[in-house]
Amino acid sequence: MTNILEQDTICALSTAPGMGAIAIIRISGNKTFDVVESIFSKPIKDKNSHSAHFGLIKDGQKIIDEVLLTVFKNPKSFTGEDSVEITCHGSVFIQEQIIQLLIRSGARMAKAGEFSMRAFMNGKMDLSQTEAIADLISSTNKAQHEVAMHQMRGGFSTELKGLRQQLLDFASLIELELDFSEEDVEFADRSQLELLVEEITNGINTLMESFQLGNVIKNGVPVAIVGAPNSGKSTLLNALLNEDKAIVSEIPGTTRDVIEDEIIIGDIAFRFMDTAGIRETTDTIENLGIKRSFEQVKKAKIILLMFGLNDISASTILNQINDFKGKNIQGFQTLIPIFNKSDTANINDFEVLNDKGVFISAKLKTNMSNLRERLKSSVGNEGSSNQLIVTNARHYEALQRSFEAINRVKMGLSSQIPGDLLAMDIRETLHCLGEITGDVSNDELLGNIFANFCIGK
Amino acid sequence: MTNILEQDTICALSTAPGMGAIAIIRISGNKTFDVVESIFSKPIKDKNSHSAHFGLIKDGQKIIDEVLLTVFKNPKSFTGEDSVEITCHGSVFIQEQIIQLLIRSGARMAKAGEFSMRAFMNGKMDLSQTEAIADLISSTNKAQHEVAMHQMRGGFSTELKGLRQQLLDFASLIELELDFSEEDVEFADRSQLELLVEEITNGINTLMESFQLGNVIKNGVPVAIVGAPNSGKSTLLNALLNEDKAIVSEIPGTTRDVIEDEIIIGDIAFRFMDTAGIRETTDTIENLGIKRSFEQVKKAKIILLMFGLNDISASTILNQINDFKGKNIQGFQTLIPIFNKSDTANINDFEVLNDKGVFISAKLKTNMSNLRERLKSSVGNEGSSNQLIVTNARHYEALQRSFEAINRVKMGLSSQIPGDLLAMDIRETLHCLGEITGDVSNDELLGNIFANFCIGK
Repeated sequence: MTNILEQDTICALSTAPGMGAIAIIRISGNKTFDVVESIFSKPIKDKNSHSAHFGLIKDGQKIIDEVLLTVFKNPKSFTGEDSVEITCHGSVFIQEQIIQLLIRSGARMAKAGEFSMRAFMNGKMDLSQTEAIADLISSTNKAQHEVAMHQMRGGFSTELKGLRQQLLDFASLIELELDFSEEDVEFADRSQLELLVEEITNGINTLMESFQLGNVIKNGVPVAIVGAPNSGKSTLLNALLNEDKAIVSEIPGTTRDVIEDEIIIGDIAFRFMDTAGIRETTDTIENLGIKRSFEQVKKAKIILLMFGLNDISASTILNQINDFKGKNIQGFQTLIPIFNKSDTANINDFEVLNDKGVFISAKLKTNMSNLRERLKSSVGNEGSSNQLIVTNARHYEALQRSFEAINRVKMGLSSQIPGDLLAMDIRETLHCLGEITGDVSNDELLGNIFANFCIGK
Repeated sequence: MTNILEQDTICALSTAPGMGAIAIIRISGNKTFDVVESIFSKPIKDKNSHSAHFGLIKDGQKIIDEVLLTVFKNPKSFTGEDSVEITCHGSVFIQEQIIQLLIRSGARMAKAGEFSMRAFMNGKMDLSQTEAIADLISSTNKAQHEVAMHQMRGGFSTELKGLRQQLLDFASLIELELDFSEEDVEFADRSQLELLVEEITNGINTLMESFQLGNVIKNGVPVAIVGAPNSGKSTLLNALLNEDKAIVSEIPGTTRDVIEDEIIIGDIAFRFMDTAGIRETTDTIENLGIKRSFEQVKKAKIILLMFGLNDISASTILNQINDFKGKNIQGFQTLIPIFNKSDTANINDFEVLNDKGVFISAKLKTNMSNLRERLKSSVGNEGSSNQLIVTNARHYEALQRSFEAINRVKMGLSSQIPGDLLAMDIRETLHCLGEITGDVSNDELLGNIFANFCIGK
């Protein structure tokens, strides 16, 4: 691992971009105190770590701002390096002036994720923990937040590290056997190794299985609303969106990063996919839209099949539900028929549908709480996140490779292959598992991971 | 002044809204430490002021975030009260969770400007200084920033306060005379009072005169671009905007609060007003637009009169310039004729115009630096802000009333009116001057001022 980065002192705006009452500019690196002292009205080198100081940021004689400056001394900082946080007034102009002044004074602009990368390189946290910070920052609901928090505080990497360490110990013994290969000794107890391999296989398996749920937590449960044109799909979506958007708090910015069609119901994020109305048509463009609708149905976990109750009979609806179920619904999916426009229809005509779906009036927002309950119960207990859950595609991919490698170890053990081949597969497993926690890493891998971070973190 | 506010403990997000690497939540009020201790993993009451502590924000057993918490003890804080700043991860969800938790634990959401209002009420700064903070936060260029910084650090209020104190002393003497009115004594030296009144009149005058400049600094120099349809007005505006927008730095968010048609040239903000093309027409709608163009010309400090050089002769241009100057240009305005499309015209035909304006090609962005220089020099040295400058309309209005009152004092002195009438005018002057610094204030006035602040400041 190169240490080139650590020679630079880096700075960046760490709070959200734009104007606020105040803003924080972070500086980190071994020249931090020199750089900052050259523009601050007080000496700071002699100050205690974790102490805050009021003073002026000056460009020569010109006052840029009155600020509060907090000193963090190596290794007691987020990055593990000497660091300073400048809390300045939140004008974009002032933020820019201070950062330019810092750069002129010997710091450089931090790259995306560079503060976190240094925290990892200085051993303040492992790689999966560092990645969890990015997830934590972008979490928009309780389930995402819990999973990210759990991962940041150790999560599954503690368990993985333990298993990996045991496997590493076996690997050493097997490599030792190779040195004594002429004497045909076995330092590594094969039956114990088999048990460990079994344990690791199970662990990897559980984590891999958690990924589908992790994905749902991270990206929301995909819900497709389908139905004939004019059955009220958009009205329903708006009704769900509007009601729930009214719940957001007074805190400014709450709604800014909300995805337009994501709705949080009972701490679970549902991602609604708008679809074109489905009907028989010869219009090419419209058919394209309908084709896309069916593709989205394939990807959805829940399908809301909508019917407008005005010009259709109960028996036609029943037939269409059965037809749709047969043609389009896969095992992991839940179909919820929605009978809309219950306000204008004669409900008695549709009694036969009572246990087949949910009657609503999207326009009048009638019975929406019932629909919400159905959505929640379709997800079941998957939303609870006390388990270990993998949400990161990189982790999943490394787990897949670990799984293949450990399977080869397993087969090798049962077919008693030579120690050198066994050692190779074990090394491969160790490598893949190590990629997750960052015990094994390279610059390219790190570069890719941290490029997805925001600047200032 | 009521102290009701101070009994509440308030909290708010103080950094820019939206997602960032980190965010700051401020809490202030006499129950701050109780409220915060109930959700933080460590005791904080025994900590030193200005010390930062790493720990967990917990909602019961549930971890909301790992945070850094800085303690400020009354009176050593921005508000003068016990305060805490929580630096949390910058997820909107986390910000919201912590604020909701604080509210459930006994704090309430701060109103706009409430932290600053408390700073003022607790004597940490006077009213004009507090108002300068709002200007400082919204400053987008060097001139605005300098004026606001100057005002926040005392600025003209120090001078005003000194003059007001002297006048107050005289007022006391004159009121004393009234108590001894039967004895016809003069405790207040009239000639000294006259000198002071003169000094105050001059001071107020200077400040009032600075307001036009202050307004320009705060809102930008108003520039109208006028000319016949198709003379290239919009192309010029785009050329100016694009070139200067390219200068903005890499810091995220820099451009977010930029007003679409504000351009900073040499530290001066120019506010360009788009106008409809001016020509003779019978179209009613178009005539409305043209009328509006002439209204904007009236308000502008600089008028760019544009000509496309393709189908017009030099002599016609000269006539039109003189005609426009005679009809539309007032004493304080600068007219800069712009000869556009110099790339396609035969320049020799227009030699006579050489010293009459600026030749450009807006399309090819030719000679734009020349135009910029002309804009800068039209503003002259007004951009320098070492003087005392009034930028706030409220201050200007109070100064106007002070001016009228002090003038009455002056006339009263020269016509030797009775002491009780003189005392009344002096009291009026004192009141108006006091409104600027906040020595005189009422809840309504304060409510109006702080309502314009952002929440969290």
